[in-house]
Amino acid sequence: MIQNFTYYNPTKIVFGKDTISQLSDLISKEEKVFLVYGGGSIKRNGVYEQVMRALDKYKIVEFSGIEPNPQYSTLMKAVELGKSEKITFILGVGGGSVIDGIKFISAAMEFEGKDPWDILAKHVPLTKAIPLGCVLTLPAAGSEMISNSVVSRADTKEKLFFSSPLVYPKFAILDPQTTFSLPAEQTRNGIVDAFVHVTEQYLTYPVNAPLQDRQAEAILLTLIEEGPKVIRRPDDYEARANVMWCATQALNGLIGCGVPQDWTTHVIGHELTALYGLAHGQTLAIVHPALLKHQQESKSDKLCQYARRVWNIEQENEKELREKAIAKTEEFFQSLGMQTKLKDYGIGDENFEFIASRLVKRRAKWGEREKIGKKEILQILRLCL
Amino acid sequence: MIQNFTYYNPTKIVFGKDTISQLSDLISKEEKVFLVYGGGSIKRNGVYEQVMRALDKYKIVEFSGIEPNPQYSTLMKAVELGKSEKITFILGVGGGSVIDGIKFISAAMEFEGKDPWDILAKHVPLTKAIPLGCVLTLPAAGSEMISNSVVSRADTKEKLFFSSPLVYPKFAILDPQTTFSLPAEQTRNGIVDAFVHVTEQYLTYPVNAPLQDRQAEAILLTLIEEGPKVIRRPDDYEARANVMWCATQALNGLIGCGVPQDWTTHVIGHELTALYGLAHGQTLAIVHPALLKHQQESKSDKLCQYARRVWNIEQENEKELREKAIAKTEEFFQSLGMQTKLKDYGIGDENFEFIASRLVKRRAKWGEREKIGKKEILQILRLCL
Repeated sequence: MIQNFTYYNPTKIVFGKDTISQLSDLISKEEKVFLVYGGGSIKRNGVYEQVMRALDKYKIVEFSGIEPNPQYSTLMKAVELGKSEKITFILGVGGGSVIDGIKFISAAMEFEGKDPWDILAKHVPLTKAIPLGCVLTLPAAGSEMISNSVVSRADTKEKLFFSSPLVYPKFAILDPQTTFSLPAEQTRNGIVDAFVHVTEQYLTYPVNAPLQDRQAEAILLTLIEEGPKVIRRPDDYEARANVMWCATQALNGLIGCGVPQDWTTHVIGHELTALYGLAHGQTLAIVHPALLKHQQESKSDKLCQYARRVWNIEQENEKELREKAIAKTEEFFQSLGMQTKLKDYGIGDENFEFIASRLVKRRAKWGEREKIGKKEILQILRLCL
Repeated sequence: MIQNFTYYNPTKIVFGKDTISQLSDLISKEEKVFLVYGGGSIKRNGVYEQVMRALDKYKIVEFSGIEPNPQYSTLMKAVELGKSEKITFILGVGGGSVIDGIKFISAAMEFEGKDPWDILAKHVPLTKAIPLGCVLTLPAAGSEMISNSVVSRADTKEKLFFSSPLVYPKFAILDPQTTFSLPAEQTRNGIVDAFVHVTEQYLTYPVNAPLQDRQAEAILLTLIEEGPKVIRRPDDYEARANVMWCATQALNGLIGCGVPQDWTTHVIGHELTALYGLAHGQTLAIVHPALLKHQQESKSDKLCQYARRVWNIEQENEKELREKAIAKTEEFFQSLGMQTKLKDYGIGDENFEFIASRLVKRRAKWGEREKIGKKEILQILRLCL
């Protein structure tokens, strides 16, 4: 049966061509703006200039250098600068890493506990946070319209998350044109990320939530249709727009309303990123097919529905139906140019024991049925080889 | 091409069994609550009691008697009472009429102009409004998660709307159990209302917005599947839950993002309600098939897509495809027990000229292509006979 749920998402989305100029309508003139971005791609593709033009009447303090999988140490430097400059609003310009990063900066700047790491490690509830907004330049993580944030820590090789309604972006500007200049690798990582965000919430077990199922299938079908277009033609505005909106809808809470969720692919993937520096999308393209193969009996009903409705596979035998759907998924990732095996990156089983042990320390059993323990994680990892 | 859009919806949805008890977490203890409801059905079905139990620590002022198609004169009485009692929060318990009503009360209580009717007639922008929340008992209008409100005025036989982000409900509690006791007539009016909310945003012309299209189809397919179940078994919790969530999703702004919208069926329907007192859903079931027949060439691409994806009609000839889809739509309404012709209510063409004249005075051309003028409205009305 459909579960009780709460849905709350106050982020204002401003979507479309040349929307960055609307920044000055979205941020009050009194704010001292903390402009936070990544490695500087926004200076090469003109986005930085558009932002600065829109904010020419504002006091701005800049912080650049947020890396992919934003690092705790980097973010803490931003926290210090933000405090000493007494900034009042944080504007992140970039992809999921920048936006996840500013959520942590926002929370840590107002954190009253001893160690801001506890926001992530102990999920200490927040009481206040600096307001924030963003200009999204990479559709993937869905961070622009959710209250979650994932932060990495190099010294302990950890990648942890926190969530608080206080760090919902006040607004997110989505101009598909900003994504024309993305490297192909980031484009395909983004498509896989959005796709797996959906399947983590959809490929579980049925609870008679037909609207949520179809809303999930809507995103998957659209990504399958539009994803290859943006790989072929990076400046196809309409395809870019459709992929961008899919990525936001994939992780804004809507399709997860009242349904069981998995997220095992993500937690195993985060370990691979923390240990080997693989991009998030790269880890998902490896782990997800392996997880589906391993869990195919437990996920049988939804995998069969997925096979029929998303991949149009006509087949009576449930086992064949599932297997074909999983194969189609893996082929789709490959068609975008993704690798789907650890060996493609020269990675072996050397850390499997470490990964499995660490994950079951955080939670004994993972997955929507809470039946994935250490043994199962090791089996899934072996299927990734 | 997909149009630029802004999407903002801060209403918190609390969905599921026995959720009314959460009211005390949603309204601050300091508030003086204005409890507003309709004709008293909530006293018969136990909802009133649940609300009062949840609010037993609050100061409450009650106002009952909001009628279907809430009347300006009634709402102005509530405004007076609310002001004299200095209420600080409005809680509406009921369906779309009650929730539309409290939005107007909220706006009018803080209105600083001379005549509150101007909120509706002149769309005077609001600067403040009393915060409000709701417990929904009738899935239909979608008022629980949108900033629109429609108010009727008996003396001038008008039915007008206003919209402001200030009147988004802070929260909406959706407990499907509250809908078990709905009369069959209200249940089917609600299903038709939700269905036509979707088609007004979907059956227009394509702009290459495949996600929005599929999100719309998701709601239609679910209503077609679950609607008949709630007619057959009024206490089927799961079907009631699915219909309820469909009705909210049908009109919360999401499926309308970046796509053209029609709403001609609604404005003609409002006239029939204002003149003859037909329920809103009853008017839509009559006007919508007529409008689709009249506009079938202009809407051909989307009607064919609708035929194939929603009704599974396999057919090459576009004209036949469209006609079959329109016939299926009308049959679906009839299968729920709806009448689909004016003559079923003993109504003739006596007011057609008046309706058409009044509508083109408000706007010269209606519809997503702005090509429906007086002549076309008269033709559509004749198809309603």
